[in-house]
Amino acid sequence: MSAPALTALQVGDAITPLSRRVTQVQINAYAEASGDPNPIHTNEEFARAVGLPGTIAHGMLSLGILAGAVARWAGGSERLTALGARFSRPLLPGDTLTCSGRVIAVEEASGVVSLAVEAVSDRGDSVLTNGRAQVRLDT
Amino acid sequence: MSAPALTALQVGDAITPLSRRVTQVQINAYAEASGDPNPIHTNEEFARAVGLPGTIAHGMLSLGILAGAVARWAGGSERLTALGARFSRPLLPGDTLTCSGRVIAVEEASGVVSLAVEAVSDRGDSVLTNGRAQVRLDT
Repeated sequence: MSAPALTALQVGDAITPLSRRVTQVQINAYAEASGDPNPIHTNEEFARAVGLPGTIAHGMLSLGILAGAVARWAGGSERLTALGARFSRPLLPGDTLTCSGRVIAVEEASGVVSLAVEAVSDRGDSVLTNGRAQVRLDT
Repeated sequence: MSAPALTALQVGDAITPLSRRVTQVQINAYAEASGDPNPIHTNEEFARAVGLPGTIAHGMLSLGILAGAVARWAGGSERLTALGARFSRPLLPGDTLTCSGRVIAVEEASGVVSLAVEAVSDRGDSVLTNGRAQVRLDT
């Protein structure tokens, strides 16, 4: 992965968008790996019983995909120094999540670049909103 | 999981801390589930070659544990509406991560509670800092 050149970056520049389709198989794997036992993610019947349209992906799975989008653009996950977002709408198995972002600040001395980031589903839902990320690029 | 009563909450109240030991087995599972192929998380030799003390956990794995701590305290992961933090120090396999937090704002009308959150390792490293979480409790 090649990182963007710090000196060429400008406020408003977009990061390369990343789209990823999320499957129930991946949601099940994430439930196991993360240790989140909430059956709204893995049990269709349970999810419907609590008023959901079916199982939903973990918000942290979506946030992890967003982290991957920023890390890929920045040239490696070790360059991602901060991340946060609002979990606004659920992502359903079979949905494709598209992550995007824009540079909102560049500190040339330290190499710290701040980004506004978000993720939307292919059904038009704003899954992650009000996102902020920070990366550290080579000075 | 029983949620805290909104009306009883006060600014400064601590959430129930959560400690979790992270193993290489879990890091490997997380790498697969999240689709992050960076070998600094799974390949000891590679990690040492790039100057790390060995493999390190994904920052998003630590953030996921922090999410779990907030969700458990709030009475369910569906109540966690926003989360973010700074990835300050790496977490190593075998380390135990302890997550904690304090209430910084309570909006009684909407049920939205804001928290300052963080996570430290049992070797004294501040793994996640400057964390903010938001949960929505029953009004």
